[in-house]
Amino acid sequence: MRQTFDDHSGPSFGRQRLPLIRAAMDRQGLDGFLTPHEDEHQNEYLPLANDRLAWATGFTGSAGAAVILKDRAAVFVDGRYTLQVKAQIDPDLFEIEDLMDGAVAAWLEGALKPGQVIGYDPRLHCPDQLARLAAAVRSAGAELRAVADNPVDEAWGEERPAQPQAPVVPHPLIYAGEDSAAKRARIGAATARHGADCALLTAPASIAWLFNIRGGDVIRSPLPLAQAILEEDGRARLFLDPAKITADQPAWLGNAVSIESPAALAGALAGLAGRRVLIDPAQSSSWYFEALEAAGAEVVRAADPCVLPRACKNAVEIEGARRAHLRDGAALTRFLHWLDTEAQEALPGEVEITRRLEDFREQTGALKDLSFDTIAGAGPNGAVVHYRPTHASNRRVERGGLLLVDSGGQYLDGTTDVTRTVAIGEPSAQMRERFTLVLKGHLALARARFPAGVTGSALDVLARAALWAQGLDYDHGTGHGVGSYLGVHEGPQRISKAQNPVALQPGMIVSNEPGYYKSGAYGIRIENLQVVTPAQDIEGGERPMLGFETLTLAPIDRRLIDSGLLSGEETAQLDAYHARVLAEIGPQVEIKVQQWLTKVCSPV
Amino acid sequence: MRQTFDDHSGPSFGRQRLPLIRAAMDRQGLDGFLTPHEDEHQNEYLPLANDRLAWATGFTGSAGAAVILKDRAAVFVDGRYTLQVKAQIDPDLFEIEDLMDGAVAAWLEGALKPGQVIGYDPRLHCPDQLARLAAAVRSAGAELRAVADNPVDEAWGEERPAQPQAPVVPHPLIYAGEDSAAKRARIGAATARHGADCALLTAPASIAWLFNIRGGDVIRSPLPLAQAILEEDGRARLFLDPAKITADQPAWLGNAVSIESPAALAGALAGLAGRRVLIDPAQSSSWYFEALEAAGAEVVRAADPCVLPRACKNAVEIEGARRAHLRDGAALTRFLHWLDTEAQEALPGEVEITRRLEDFREQTGALKDLSFDTIAGAGPNGAVVHYRPTHASNRRVERGGLLLVDSGGQYLDGTTDVTRTVAIGEPSAQMRERFTLVLKGHLALARARFPAGVTGSALDVLARAALWAQGLDYDHGTGHGVGSYLGVHEGPQRISKAQNPVALQPGMIVSNEPGYYKSGAYGIRIENLQVVTPAQDIEGGERPMLGFETLTLAPIDRRLIDSGLLSGEETAQLDAYHARVLAEIGPQVEIKVQQWLTKVCSPV
Repeated sequence: MRQTFDDHSGPSFGRQRLPLIRAAMDRQGLDGFLTPHEDEHQNEYLPLANDRLAWATGFTGSAGAAVILKDRAAVFVDGRYTLQVKAQIDPDLFEIEDLMDGAVAAWLEGALKPGQVIGYDPRLHCPDQLARLAAAVRSAGAELRAVADNPVDEAWGEERPAQPQAPVVPHPLIYAGEDSAAKRARIGAATARHGADCALLTAPASIAWLFNIRGGDVIRSPLPLAQAILEEDGRARLFLDPAKITADQPAWLGNAVSIESPAALAGALAGLAGRRVLIDPAQSSSWYFEALEAAGAEVVRAADPCVLPRACKNAVEIEGARRAHLRDGAALTRFLHWLDTEAQEALPGEVEITRRLEDFREQTGALKDLSFDTIAGAGPNGAVVHYRPTHASNRRVERGGLLLVDSGGQYLDGTTDVTRTVAIGEPSAQMRERFTLVLKGHLALARARFPAGVTGSALDVLARAALWAQGLDYDHGTGHGVGSYLGVHEGPQRISKAQNPVALQPGMIVSNEPGYYKSGAYGIRIENLQVVTPAQDIEGGERPMLGFETLTLAPIDRRLIDSGLLSGEETAQLDAYHARVLAEIGPQVEIKVQQWLTKVCSPV
Repeated sequence: MRQTFDDHSGPSFGRQRLPLIRAAMDRQGLDGFLTPHEDEHQNEYLPLANDRLAWATGFTGSAGAAVILKDRAAVFVDGRYTLQVKAQIDPDLFEIEDLMDGAVAAWLEGALKPGQVIGYDPRLHCPDQLARLAAAVRSAGAELRAVADNPVDEAWGEERPAQPQAPVVPHPLIYAGEDSAAKRARIGAATARHGADCALLTAPASIAWLFNIRGGDVIRSPLPLAQAILEEDGRARLFLDPAKITADQPAWLGNAVSIESPAALAGALAGLAGRRVLIDPAQSSSWYFEALEAAGAEVVRAADPCVLPRACKNAVEIEGARRAHLRDGAALTRFLHWLDTEAQEALPGEVEITRRLEDFREQTGALKDLSFDTIAGAGPNGAVVHYRPTHASNRRVERGGLLLVDSGGQYLDGTTDVTRTVAIGEPSAQMRERFTLVLKGHLALARARFPAGVTGSALDVLARAALWAQGLDYDHGTGHGVGSYLGVHEGPQRISKAQNPVALQPGMIVSNEPGYYKSGAYGIRIENLQVVTPAQDIEGGERPMLGFETLTLAPIDRRLIDSGLLSGEETAQLDAYHARVLAEIGPQVEIKVQQWLTKVCSPV
């Protein structure tokens, strides 16, 4: 079993550890300390050793921050985690705040007193974030001070786990579609176009993509923790723990890449005196900037040049994604069949449901990892947007209730992420109405055609308009980018209310996942992944339009659809999707599942 | 007649004047000169004396810019003017470029040679625009130099008309809804919240709104050309030509406002030494910043504090807008009736159509001005987005063709702006299909409900999705703000593809005007004004939602609708709108028009 159901965490964490952290702060003369969720690599999913926010507060969400003062502390979380955080932290110790843009800065400005000293670990913050925090601290008359020793790490002490040492393996060309030398040549050229001689890359996903390698240092994402210096001519120095590399591996990277120990990085940076070094102020920690400036390098601030090329999947990666989704869709279909038949005899709990789903994926023989911990939320747990079942929270599905299952797999040929919401027994009229509104939004976004230059922010409303018209909404984004056997959350594109300047471009994979959550009752989410298709002429039209090809293949629960609320266009679109699911998944599954699938894919 | 149909302009302008301007540049040692459309007040519609871009190039659009070098020149226009500019300028003299974000800077960067000196008039450019141009000029190794004497003005010489001297009149409380003292108190307080002691206001619309005055210096907008210094306690100095003020007027501004000559402004700025002065770098010319800095004032860069309050109309202004639209809708309905009956006997030309429409508006007895020159485009002229008919271009409507009429009036109680597209005789199937697609977008935006915080950029796609799905689009924004007896184009909100951070707020008036243009054949646009309604609960919903109340009342041509393309929801929405038009406009018009209106407002 890959997923565990233990309660790692809870309000006791903060109760025990806050005094230890405050004592460590005291020893360094700090009145406060900033603890972001992100680690040295700005990872979203963290090695246990780097999950400082969870260790310090008890909050285990995939985004957040804490500020710890001597007599006050606050935890900042986004709309996905408002319910979870209340269960995980002690409200007597931590104020709970909304992690919206600028919220930490605003809180600091209100909470600090003149003369106070607030510490931060320069390895954990990007300059872009830090600039706003520094301005807020200054405006309160306080001082923001970089620390050499993180007080959380000091408090954690010997109980802190070791850094991960997972082996690094090549990611073959049959999956990557472009060899590392070609990638390095074009990213080197892009670096030169930015007026830099070389680029300092610190994002594990960029390293993995650029060198066609995958690691296992971070749970749920096959990321290697490493840094690299890429020259404009495509040569590179890759800083990677030698213990992670088997003897035969360096060969396939060729002579143009030297592999060096992470301990050599500081010296390598010091050797960049006088050179123009591209580095991303939104992705690389402040520490790197300080090191480059101390070395006398000329810092060229620009977006990590791997990010956009990585987001735009090539033909081989797109074909891989289709294969991965066919495989994953067959596993999910078997699971949905089980849920609708065998499981009805003695209704299962969330833990069993999660195990069964993992089993079906495991049976594909191709599963490398889950792409994230499965969210299986029965009844009111479905309304906790990023719920993870534990033995303590485990809840049995009930007749007349809903089950929300958000899950995905990591396969060599692609990463999947899919959510289905299923009725157990007879759903209420309200459940059907709300599910249908969510479905209308999902379908509107899936069928969108749009000209070049349109961003995900511009399309977001398509997924929400039907809910808004009824006075409903959901407090999370509509779509995130997805990697190719990489992170299940990947930038730079995003479909959300928040403005994002990045246009959707052919080959980008994005999720389409509107939802509706009734706190204390049930949650609804419908999520497919879709890949942006190239601009194509439309018959009778004048301008070529981009669009989406849906990758995810699994039935959407027709019992939850109030077909009277669907337009003719929506009904035809849904029926066509189900016909495609039946045609593609049907041949992959055994006869009894096929028969069931035929039924659940029939036209509404 | 308010509108004229003479050809002021043409390619001869540039042919005659470019040599004069280049000679003036030469005398000042300039290799180039920047000529924006905007004037000293950043006006969109200009007094004739300030329309330097038109004088220099021949291009008369309401937005644009030119760069004049010794041996090259370029005119930059947006998508609305791509056809018009070709008719108005000589392509041998001017390159035509797209006025998109950063285009002038990019052109400069490519065109300039190291060591060249490019002049600009600091009274005509805001620092925000100038910063990007300066960076581009620097990056080409050239120098950007402020000039004291504008070479265009020098070339224009004695033929340049005098500055306008229209009287300034009070805008009574029954229309403004809030007296100037109250406005000055709250804008003064907002100025203090920005950390400033006073604000330097230079936008005529802000001055008009803040002091409840209207002028006549600018055609089509009742703007007074003036500046003001507003103290945080609400006292103000208003710099306004005394010749514009009748003896009894200063009284109603009260003792807290001193009226001074514009010649006193420079001295007043020099007297701001040591004071913190708020000024808007996106709206006030560079010249003011230089004057403040030279005086030793502390410049506080922030948005003009009048802009957002002005955009959010109060209850009296909204009620005024409803009245103005009822009156204007009755005039437009009489015009549409004339077009559909009497005019069918001998089909009229655009000039006659424009005159008739103006007559109907004049007959209301309340028309203060047109809100812009009527765009009456028959057949292919309808595809010229901001077409203005002239005697030379005048075209008769033809059976089987379309007529696009975009027009509006200035009334004391409100500003209107409406577009109707009308079939003359039997429209083609393609015209009906395209009109219906535009209508679908118009209806989707009109019925949108949305939570607080949503911007016009986020809603734009609603108006385009139906067109995009068929491979069609339009190259202009979907909606602009509209003033209350002020400019027909008003910020800060906007509904467009371009990202805009300003959320739509209750009381904002915006246009809803999707279109479709078939170059050389016909143009379609459907435009109503709508006011943002406060967040209201929706039955069965959970979150209050803002929405729109449509202000414009006039029939939409049902002969152009392919009802088979409308959903049930769309049909019901259109029929309800027509029922409202009939109920509200019917009682305002004579019996024969009423009978006609009953017919054209019947359900589709």
